[in-house]
Amino acid sequence: MFGDTEDLKDFTVAASSIHEYVAQNEKRFLNELLDLLRIPSISTLPEHKGDVARAAQFVADQLKGAGMENVEVIPSSKHPLVYADWLHAPGKPTVLCYGHYDVQPPDPLELWKSPPFEPDIRDGNIYARGACDDKGQMYMHVKAAETLRAVHNGKLPLNLKFLIEGEEEVGGDAIAKYVPSHKEKLKADVALVSDTELFADGVPTLCVGLRGLVYLEIEASGPARDLHSGMYGGTAPNAVYGLIELLAKAKDAEGHIQIPGIYDDVVPPDPAELASWERLPFDEQEFLRSEVGSTVLTGEPEQSVFARTWARPTFEVHGIAGGFTGAGAKTVIPAKATAKVSLRLVPTQDPERVVTAVKKWVAEQTPKGIQTDVRVLSAGPAVSVNPQHPAIDIAAKAFSEKLGQQTVFVRSGGSIPIVGEFASYLGIPTILMGFGLPDDGLHSPNEKYRVSNYYQGIETIAEFFEQYGAATVS
Amino acid sequence: MFGDTEDLKDFTVAASSIHEYVAQNEKRFLNELLDLLRIPSISTLPEHKGDVARAAQFVADQLKGAGMENVEVIPSSKHPLVYADWLHAPGKPTVLCYGHYDVQPPDPLELWKSPPFEPDIRDGNIYARGACDDKGQMYMHVKAAETLRAVHNGKLPLNLKFLIEGEEEVGGDAIAKYVPSHKEKLKADVALVSDTELFADGVPTLCVGLRGLVYLEIEASGPARDLHSGMYGGTAPNAVYGLIELLAKAKDAEGHIQIPGIYDDVVPPDPAELASWERLPFDEQEFLRSEVGSTVLTGEPEQSVFARTWARPTFEVHGIAGGFTGAGAKTVIPAKATAKVSLRLVPTQDPERVVTAVKKWVAEQTPKGIQTDVRVLSAGPAVSVNPQHPAIDIAAKAFSEKLGQQTVFVRSGGSIPIVGEFASYLGIPTILMGFGLPDDGLHSPNEKYRVSNYYQGIETIAEFFEQYGAATVS
Repeated sequence: MFGDTEDLKDFTVAASSIHEYVAQNEKRFLNELLDLLRIPSISTLPEHKGDVARAAQFVADQLKGAGMENVEVIPSSKHPLVYADWLHAPGKPTVLCYGHYDVQPPDPLELWKSPPFEPDIRDGNIYARGACDDKGQMYMHVKAAETLRAVHNGKLPLNLKFLIEGEEEVGGDAIAKYVPSHKEKLKADVALVSDTELFADGVPTLCVGLRGLVYLEIEASGPARDLHSGMYGGTAPNAVYGLIELLAKAKDAEGHIQIPGIYDDVVPPDPAELASWERLPFDEQEFLRSEVGSTVLTGEPEQSVFARTWARPTFEVHGIAGGFTGAGAKTVIPAKATAKVSLRLVPTQDPERVVTAVKKWVAEQTPKGIQTDVRVLSAGPAVSVNPQHPAIDIAAKAFSEKLGQQTVFVRSGGSIPIVGEFASYLGIPTILMGFGLPDDGLHSPNEKYRVSNYYQGIETIAEFFEQYGAATVS
Repeated sequence: MFGDTEDLKDFTVAASSIHEYVAQNEKRFLNELLDLLRIPSISTLPEHKGDVARAAQFVADQLKGAGMENVEVIPSSKHPLVYADWLHAPGKPTVLCYGHYDVQPPDPLELWKSPPFEPDIRDGNIYARGACDDKGQMYMHVKAAETLRAVHNGKLPLNLKFLIEGEEEVGGDAIAKYVPSHKEKLKADVALVSDTELFADGVPTLCVGLRGLVYLEIEASGPARDLHSGMYGGTAPNAVYGLIELLAKAKDAEGHIQIPGIYDDVVPPDPAELASWERLPFDEQEFLRSEVGSTVLTGEPEQSVFARTWARPTFEVHGIAGGFTGAGAKTVIPAKATAKVSLRLVPTQDPERVVTAVKKWVAEQTPKGIQTDVRVLSAGPAVSVNPQHPAIDIAAKAFSEKLGQQTVFVRSGGSIPIVGEFASYLGIPTILMGFGLPDDGLHSPNEKYRVSNYYQGIETIAEFFEQYGAATVS
């Protein structure tokens, strides 16, 4: 049995320090992660349902192997949750570790230099879908727990709970239902999430703000069937063009959203936070060149890049399809077209109010002859975390020590819906302590995660657990 | 040998009249067409290249079977041309029969009630891709020739040439090269094309105007790779949205094209033609309901429906694709997007000038941060035919007699590029004598062709050959 071996290991290979244990086990820690990355757990594609289940079981087995108890794979209507805990440190604080084992689809496949689910190590990086987002980062928590148990002869200096989901990339329905109905089971002092990035290489970074997300599918219908564009062109509504006309009205040429009411609840960041952003090491030309890979940055010209990505709502079209899109020419007036659309939200915007505003705007702006249908695929609010919280203070200190630089506090433009749910239902803040790099290519071809950041993350998290357990009485 | 049997048949089964011969051979005439419709000769899809070649050979074999001579399958860089002739009527006129054996793709497949390449006869109609456009109509010419030879004991009262292409739905490159370089071989007094429709059920109709077509592919590029819409949303150009913004500027809300210069060469129809259109039996509500299948007609409100579809240029988006379009949610800022776009042209508009105007407009209107590339897939001018030409007069007479009503002269909004090429290079007009019905669903799911129109077409065309041969000395 795998569990037996791990138990044996714990009692025979105890190490004198976190760093020593991680160094001794580097190779195995990496190989375990590569095994997890080989499982194509793409939560949005029904044909990968079995792979997602396999990834869940892998995570459960590894939690057991790391000495966690009460390990459960909890079924849901879509993909399972994995729970585990270790609760033998009475009087010590409890950290709820969250991560996700599902990944984004890898397409466009042809742009990957090595296959997305055959992890390849090049130049000190692991290239694979999910390497950084979030398998590589989630797995650091598991290895940090194992490491700390080894250092403490099978015990931990604090209590740990793990809740790992498989639907983060598809709206997180299962966890959104589980958290409010299991408040006692999930009770903790703070949550820990590693699904963010270092502001820059080597800069310890804690994220204290996340944008929310409303994700919609808008379908346009025109004529009853595809029509011959010669016979009917000039008189018949075109579903693709109708959708184009509608979506083009969503923003002005400078990127300001034109949907009435969208900016009503947007509160600008306070002057102190804005000032701290000014001090961040940031080269706009380098950001443009090496990250965005474009000729110019776009968006609201009167806002800074940080404000545009962290503190302003967006309207984005993620994909559009309709009519004939094969090779060559086909002269149809398409009957149907669909677009995937999202709005990122900032603190104090209410997702329901935004959905209502978008639906009203779509109904009013849909061109003549076209019918539109708006489907809400997910809706979650933005969150912000108080950087003065004691656990965050200790995390910042452990982080600063490990990387040898002052920890900076930033926001992220991305969305981690569960952080808002931990706040609402468990009443706890979340430490967003990520080790990704800005050019890791999350959601893109050739996603990567630096091997040394993986080890650094395991050590930093173990140090945080150590110091939080030592400093605090729950 | 098939050819031997046919020769035998010609000498043993002579009939006393066109109508009698068609009636005697109805079942075989239909079965031969169904065999042709079973070949999925989709010219735009590379994987069907073999099927297109098979359809060419089928047509060649049938022309031989109908007694035509010098039958050739002429290879090209894409799909072959089929040529055949019968030239033993010295002093008599020559008709060049044109048609196409290739078809449009059948998608969306799920909307077909019976599979597109398994022809199904329901309610007196043949349901299959290509039933009307143009296999069913092209094949009437072959059967008309066979019929007339049977009636004339193996001879014809005029000379016939056949030139059948397999690239009509993909721009017709092979025939466009073949015609100018084979002027002597293709010399004729008039061309005959059956690729149009009756204005209404039972109304003999000759088409004297066709719109031209410029077909383009516009590709937009934004960031170097797909980006995470959380991390970069608000600052990064989005290729899908850039393409949407560009295309939305092509027309105003009433459908007037906004590309500078597009209307410069548009000449309105003369008052007599406009007046003749007013007399056509037309119910706008019925057109809207049973043909367009929409809530309202769209397009330039100050123009009549006939003017909008026959005498005004259009700008149409046939398909668009970009970003994530699978099931569920993916939050990318797409790096690429492509649209298929066409403009229908009216007489006196120059396709080259239109292409230049569109390219200039695209370059000027492409949004910030987006690069666009315009590829021309095909470009051909509109054509108009003089209804006073003697062959057209005889065709109209034969048509009126067969259907028992006065033949009407209309235009078509569609494009048959070869008609312009016959005019330019061979100096001959084209009789556009089609037997389709307005609701036949060309290019759409459930394309059909009425069985009785197929037989009526064979008889009418044979009658036209008979009368043209009798009346005219070349």
